[in-house]
Amino acid sequence: MTLEVGVLGYRFMGKAHANAMARLPMFFPDAPEIERSVLVGRDESALSDAAERLGFDSISTEWRDVVDDVDVFYNLGPNHVHREPSVAALEAGTPVFCEKPLAPTLEAADVMAETAREAGDDVPAGCAFNYRFVPAIRYAKGLLEAGELGEIRHVRGRYLQDWLVDPEAPWSWRNDEEMAGSGALGDLGSHTVDLLRFLVGSDDLSGGIERVSGHLQTFVDERPVEDGSETRPVTVDDAYTAQLEFENGAVGSLEGTRVAAGHKNDHTIEIHGTEGSLKFSLERLNELEVLREGDRGYETILVTDEDDPYVDHWWPPGHVLGWEHTFVHENYEFLSAVESGDEFEPNFEDGLAAQQVLDAIERSDERGEWVSLE
Amino acid sequence: MTLEVGVLGYRFMGKAHANAMARLPMFFPDAPEIERSVLVGRDESALSDAAERLGFDSISTEWRDVVDDVDVFYNLGPNHVHREPSVAALEAGTPVFCEKPLAPTLEAADVMAETAREAGDDVPAGCAFNYRFVPAIRYAKGLLEAGELGEIRHVRGRYLQDWLVDPEAPWSWRNDEEMAGSGALGDLGSHTVDLLRFLVGSDDLSGGIERVSGHLQTFVDERPVEDGSETRPVTVDDAYTAQLEFENGAVGSLEGTRVAAGHKNDHTIEIHGTEGSLKFSLERLNELEVLREGDRGYETILVTDEDDPYVDHWWPPGHVLGWEHTFVHENYEFLSAVESGDEFEPNFEDGLAAQQVLDAIERSDERGEWVSLE
Amino acid sequence: MTLEVGVLGYRFMGKAHANAMARLPMFFPDAPEIERSVLVGRDESALSDAAERLGFDSISTEWRDVVDDVDVFYNLGPNHVHREPSVAALEAGTPVFCEKPLAPTLEAADVMAETAREAGDDVPAGCAFNYRFVPAIRYAKGLLEAGELGEIRHVRGRYLQDWLVDPEAPWSWRNDEEMAGSGALGDLGSHTVDLLRFLVGSDDLSGGIERVSGHLQTFVDERPVEDGSETRPVTVDDAYTAQLEFENGAVGSLEGTRVAAGHKNDHTIEIHGTEGSLKFSLERLNELEVLREGDRGYETILVTDEDDPYVDHWWPPGHVLGWEHTFVHENYEFLSAVESGDEFEPNFEDGLAAQQVLDAIERSDERGEWVSLE
Amino acid sequence: MTLEVGVLGYRFMGKAHANAMARLPMFFPDAPEIERSVLVGRDESALSDAAERLGFDSISTEWRDVVDDVDVFYNLGPNHVHREPSVAALEAGTPVFCEKPLAPTLEAADVMAETAREAGDDVPAGCAFNYRFVPAIRYAKGLLEAGELGEIRHVRGRYLQDWLVDPEAPWSWRNDEEMAGSGALGDLGSHTVDLLRFLVGSDDLSGGIERVSGHLQTFVDERPVEDGSETRPVTVDDAYTAQLEFENGAVGSLEGTRVAAGHKNDHTIEIHGTEGSLKFSLERLNELEVLREGDRGYETILVTDEDDPYVDHWWPPGHVLGWEHTFVHENYEFLSAVESGDEFEPNFEDGLAAQQVLDAIERSDERGEWVSLE
Repeated sequence: MTLEVGVLGYRFMGKAHANAMARLPMFFPDAPEIERSVLVGRDESALSDAAERLGFDSISTEWRDVVDDVDVFYNLGPNHVHREPSVAALEAGTPVFCEKPLAPTLEAADVMAETAREAGDDVPAGCAFNYRFVPAIRYAKGLLEAGELGEIRHVRGRYLQDWLVDPEAPWSWRNDEEMAGSGALGDLGSHTVDLLRFLVGSDDLSGGIERVSGHLQTFVDERPVEDGSETRPVTVDDAYTAQLEFENGAVGSLEGTRVAAGHKNDHTIEIHGTEGSLKFSLERLNELEVLREGDRGYETILVTDEDDPYVDHWWPPGHVLGWEHTFVHENYEFLSAVESGDEFEPNFEDGLAAQQVLDAIERSDERGEWVSLE
Repeated sequence: MTLEVGVLGYRFMGKAHANAMARLPMFFPDAPEIERSVLVGRDESALSDAAERLGFDSISTEWRDVVDDVDVFYNLGPNHVHREPSVAALEAGTPVFCEKPLAPTLEAADVMAETAREAGDDVPAGCAFNYRFVPAIRYAKGLLEAGELGEIRHVRGRYLQDWLVDPEAPWSWRNDEEMAGSGALGDLGSHTVDLLRFLVGSDDLSGGIERVSGHLQTFVDERPVEDGSETRPVTVDDAYTAQLEFENGAVGSLEGTRVAAGHKNDHTIEIHGTEGSLKFSLERLNELEVLREGDRGYETILVTDEDDPYVDHWWPPGHVLGWEHTFVHENYEFLSAVESGDEFEPNFEDGLAAQQVLDAIERSDERGEWVSLE
Repeated sequence: MTLEVGVLGYRFMGKAHANAMARLPMFFPDAPEIERSVLVGRDESALSDAAERLGFDSISTEWRDVVDDVDVFYNLGPNHVHREPSVAALEAGTPVFCEKPLAPTLEAADVMAETAREAGDDVPAGCAFNYRFVPAIRYAKGLLEAGELGEIRHVRGRYLQDWLVDPEAPWSWRNDEEMAGSGALGDLGSHTVDLLRFLVGSDDLSGGIERVSGHLQTFVDERPVEDGSETRPVTVDDAYTAQLEFENGAVGSLEGTRVAAGHKNDHTIEIHGTEGSLKFSLERLNELEVLREGDRGYETILVTDEDDPYVDHWWPPGHVLGWEHTFVHENYEFLSAVESGDEFEPNFEDGLAAQQVLDAIERSDERGEWVSLE
Repeated sequence: MTLEVGVLGYRFMGKAHANAMARLPMFFPDAPEIERSVLVGRDESALSDAAERLGFDSISTEWRDVVDDVDVFYNLGPNHVHREPSVAALEAGTPVFCEKPLAPTLEAADVMAETAREAGDDVPAGCAFNYRFVPAIRYAKGLLEAGELGEIRHVRGRYLQDWLVDPEAPWSWRNDEEMAGSGALGDLGSHTVDLLRFLVGSDDLSGGIERVSGHLQTFVDERPVEDGSETRPVTVDDAYTAQLEFENGAVGSLEGTRVAAGHKNDHTIEIHGTEGSLKFSLERLNELEVLREGDRGYETILVTDEDDPYVDHWWPPGHVLGWEHTFVHENYEFLSAVESGDEFEPNFEDGLAAQQVLDAIERSDERGEWVSLE
């Protein structure tokens, strides 16, 4: 059986997922056969060009027509477009893969997760937190689950970018609360929160995040519109910080920003336990730094050996992978789940859980006090 | 004129300062002449041994006899001993150099600063935040003051140690609220807060810290007494985190811990401005990473050139300095100020200012909400 | 017009090039249209599987039938198979893309280059030194050509692997002089020599390599055959070192090894000139370290900006590329040259030039003295 | 008994050793008592200033008067002054500590070593290769001796400086063959050769260096005299490279230069064995990178723990040491040997052995062929 895939969105994420799908047959031959069937958007001409480039059979400007026609629906639009088409698809019994953050607001995320629950286990609803699929991150998770770090004491997550450091950098939907929900918090923080949940969130490690203190800051209040002389208000945060407390008492420290001069896509995760520590940096995503009991310093591991997660599909040791490979891995896992009817994670529950943390961070910022998650 | 110096404390800090004083004549020939005159402590026999080893002419078990006998009084005792002898010395008109944190509590720090104010400008009262005297930190300050980083947006300070990661690590006065005031917060956080104040605190940079959110955590509630079978309660924090907001809107993120497995003395400072960024790490204290306008990445500068701060006193480029050199530099500056009657910084006001931040962090932790500094 | 491509070889290099060709339409839409037409090998059943996996229309066990049937011929077989099919293809007027090293011996390389010369400029004959197509290397070349490093003084090239560190690691054709020509020297050294020629070989930089001193070493004389109890002799080097002198007097230092414990694919290039220096490491191939006039230390540049070589075809800044992207870039350039009739470099002359250096290193090793290149 | 020490030389090395001696009582209380007795030089006025600064009791412009008056004689003059006073001292039965390289020529080194042999074991003759006394190097030696790296395959030593990169950098005695013997080779290469001999030279590791190929290069033929308009010829090398073969077949690769833009004092040592690898860099001298059997990458060890070599004399873990501490350690060991009559290494035999390698490198360069050491 060939799965017909419909995809909403043809820019950055559209290209990343189309590439991922195109690469499955050569590198993951046991992945289900798929057809990039229909590409969905609003601008017909841009859509046509993209469909040809990205290898789609047809286009549509009406997602409503698509969601129950296809076997799988990818929702890669801006945040404010995540809810409606995803809900419609799920209600039609069509599996959905939705980009992160799951939604611009907790309310929308709640509805989406509820719909996914109602659709049932046969209808996978995935949330595309691709960094769970970095081999080094999977390897780290293996170490954590094996107890190699002992009891978790500290986690630290930091996502630094600099594309808004210039006050004259142009306004985009990402600066608008209506469309994006939040700024650095939702865009970057959702990745960080999800990775921490994935890595240490299980009950025998740190457990869930129990309470948070959040701080959002907007340094530049309005930005010029791309081609015009006017400006539009920035209604989201340029940066956020947060303190966390986990169920087991572990302490967390988060940060995300779009104004860290010189940092392009610098997502780092650091974890300290009673037996060891580890460090990961997305800009060196083939590497993991690990300190285990008895070690005196971090060991810099190049996670490209044949028995490292996903690596046997690619190249010999030392032949490094790139950012885009995380999409191939997640597409492989998601589409395989669709075919087999198995569970896929991260799913809408994970998307919702991240959203609950982000929402608590925002409420904490507004109130100037810690906020508990149930 | 030779300055007679009296020193209370003969362990770690006593050795660090005695060494610093001993090295002045060879490397800082314009420093005032001094005599390591009297070493003060309680255990006469240990004191005698130390005095011989550290080059002191005499010993005393009674600081009251010493404070107005000497020309300068160094208070290097545990935190709870900072107040009384320092106040007595200043009241006697004797310049004081007191180890950090200035005091275990804000109340004590207030009294000490007030006494220093009353003693007047002729009686320097220094607080020994030695990391201000790392050449790379001085060099960083020069860049910041010259505006090379533009408007400050983010500061980040992290001080990681691991000597309490083992739950069986023995109890010491540093685990006791009465004697230490606080744990990682006072011991490590005071350094971090002072460095940030030093580097970005001026009005044309970030200005002062306006409000804080703090979190203190104690992971191990009691620890074994060194030679015995009993335990004593740990009444201070093993770790703290904090969020900061500065006057100019800059965002801060702080952390200090004694349970970060594998980290010995890992104090890092990172600053991002609209024009550039910098990073410093104490375990590589000869280096500074700097990103300036137009740069695409951090430049790793070895701050050992002849015209770098203090370096012409030492060795040719690339012949790296160690941790202890910071004490030589601060002793040089402090003793020169004593001799000349010039101002010395960091002084008791700086010690108090750091204490105010630490105290606000503690109060914030207790209340679960942000606390403003006046 | 669609170019029909015939490919000899379906293992590691076959997969790398097939993937590269498959990705062109999405990322390099102006690349010529191609068809992965026929895959050539000896084992029909393995070949069939590979053809299906790698997307080839047909298979052949007889390269002679293929070389003038196709529009382009890729020779990705072991070194001792480079000569005959490549020569036959060129004689048939078919453009050839041959893996490196061009040949196992200088004599064979000579014949191949001579044949390419005779075939004329319309028949591109490329040698697949893929590391010329790393964005960071192209960026480095731009700096060098702009004179940013001044006169070249030192070059250093090192290629460290460890897959033969274990004396029980199995024998393969790569350990056999007949089939491979040489060991680490040809396999790794050819890459290093080519990169140095590419980066500094022009007349206004260091010019050509004038003379060499070489040293080849075999640490393990025989190795077990993969599935059997016997061993076979190792007749090539496990490691080599070389000293170089360039036309302008610059000094070179080379090394390649398969027994450097812990190093997987660690190819580093370092260059010092009178105005600056640079460093590159293949295991962190998105980065380049550059020191320019006036700089005090190396700037770590993430070469992933939109205007960096080839990067606009891929992802936004900081979304790192992997090893395989170098193949996409070289396939793009080579196939474009085939279509347009333009020159392609590195070509067989470059392959020959590298071989001349390798050969001189071997002769130097045998004689125990420096050997000049004409 | 107090040892009276006479020191010839009062510039860079004079200061480094005087400081080392001055620090012994506080940090190495079991070191012999010494008196910085007499400082020897030619310029009486500069000498007086230096003696006061460096803590010497008296001065002398006539080393002949000093060598048998003192209990220990330090020869810290330029290379061409190493021989005569050292020989005279040894002949007078006075222990000698001589800076490296032992002599400007092999002939002179031979005479010096012969004299030391004749003086007998009671008269220690040390050669001041201070890098043997870096804690991280001692720690590395411990690992090597314990067999943790297995059989040695590769050693690599590189010493990069840049103080002559500018063609207008002034002439000094270090550019003159008569006075210095050689350039980068003797000054930097002697350190590298000694460290490699120290680390892997024992018979159960790589054994001795069996043969070498050398290359010396002078990029700038004449340099301006410091205060004047004329120039003087440069008669030594600016840079050298060498290839080595050790007794056990291990392969070595050396390099030293004064024209590596941006490198100040960058001495790196790398060793690969069949079981592991290690890396050391002088500019980060508190660190050692170690890869042991079963490790996947290098572990970055901060060699500042209490049980690391010499560290218990200094500060707690993570409180890093500097370059000058190596002098304290070597002075401690040498002076203790003088007092106790025990052997001290590195001695004149070690100095001679290094010189033999340097001489072979020079002869190899002249002849264009490998040169064997007996």
